[in-house]
Amino acid sequence: MPEKTAHYSRTTCPLACALDLIGDHWTLLIIRDLMFLGRHEYKDMLNAEEGISSNILSDRLKNLEEHGLIDSIPHPASGRRKLYYLLPKGKDLIHVLTHLAQWSDKHLHDLVEIPPEKRAMLIKQPDKLIETVLKDLKAWEKMFLTNSIERSN
Amino acid sequence: MPEKTAHYSRTTCPLACALDLIGDHWTLLIIRDLMFLGRHEYKDMLNAEEGISSNILSDRLKNLEEHGLIDSIPHPASGRRKLYYLLPKGKDLIHVLTHLAQWSDKHLHDLVEIPPEKRAMLIKQPDKLIETVLKDLKAWEKMFLTNSIERSN
Repeated sequence: MPEKTAHYSRTTCPLACALDLIGDHWTLLIIRDLMFLGRHEYKDMLNAEEGISSNILSDRLKNLEEHGLIDSIPHPASGRRKLYYLLPKGKDLIHVLTHLAQWSDKHLHDLVEIPPEKRAMLIKQPDKLIETVLKDLKAWEKMFLTNSIERSN
Repeated sequence: MPEKTAHYSRTTCPLACALDLIGDHWTLLIIRDLMFLGRHEYKDMLNAEEGISSNILSDRLKNLEEHGLIDSIPHPASGRRKLYYLLPKGKDLIHVLTHLAQWSDKHLHDLVEIPPEKRAMLIKQPDKLIETVLKDLKAWEKMFLTNSIERSN
């Protein structure tokens, strides 16, 4: 976010400053891909149904890395590919995303479809949903990040 | 949001569809103004420290009214001015905003300042904060909306 258009240059409001990082039409979808949909590669995010363009995707990934919400490692199968993953700062957005999905389910029900089993958990047991997602992310990290560290030694 | 760039035309994902409405650099700040800061008039929002431009503010207010997140009534002091207020669809974003403020307090602490009393409530008693804000909004509505209906009869 260039200085002149960034809110943080004019305000210390927590909401305004957060919007400098995640307040656009695409960034939270990248967080969603990494958090809920197991899309860890550039090509997987590029092929998501919303049709993000490659220049926007590259720009947003770079921005998220620079601000410490995500990081990347070389793909185990090919050093030319990357695996992106959420850092704690990115993972902590899970509460925001969960409440946004609940809001959407309530108020945009003519547009939104959520598989019944997931919807039941989102509405009735959001804490359990969050716990499950964080556990899955931990398992992914254990598999890929541990291997990556071993390889680099 | 024009059809061709809207996520909802290509996906039923609850997060993507929500971002069609609130996923930009400014919309949630208008919701913030109405929810937490008692800014109910166009000029108050225009003068907010982030420096929104008048054409963006007009566009976002129109969009929020069209999608049922806010509404407006003539100002009691002058029919040429308007008082904007949140409808239930807008008020229900309080959980998203509260969690976003918590995230910001945790991860953007070098940029963000929250008055100590408000911060204590945000971090330790978010449910109480939400309850207080909703009660204040109800009191505002009772004062202005009831009067407005009486006047129009």
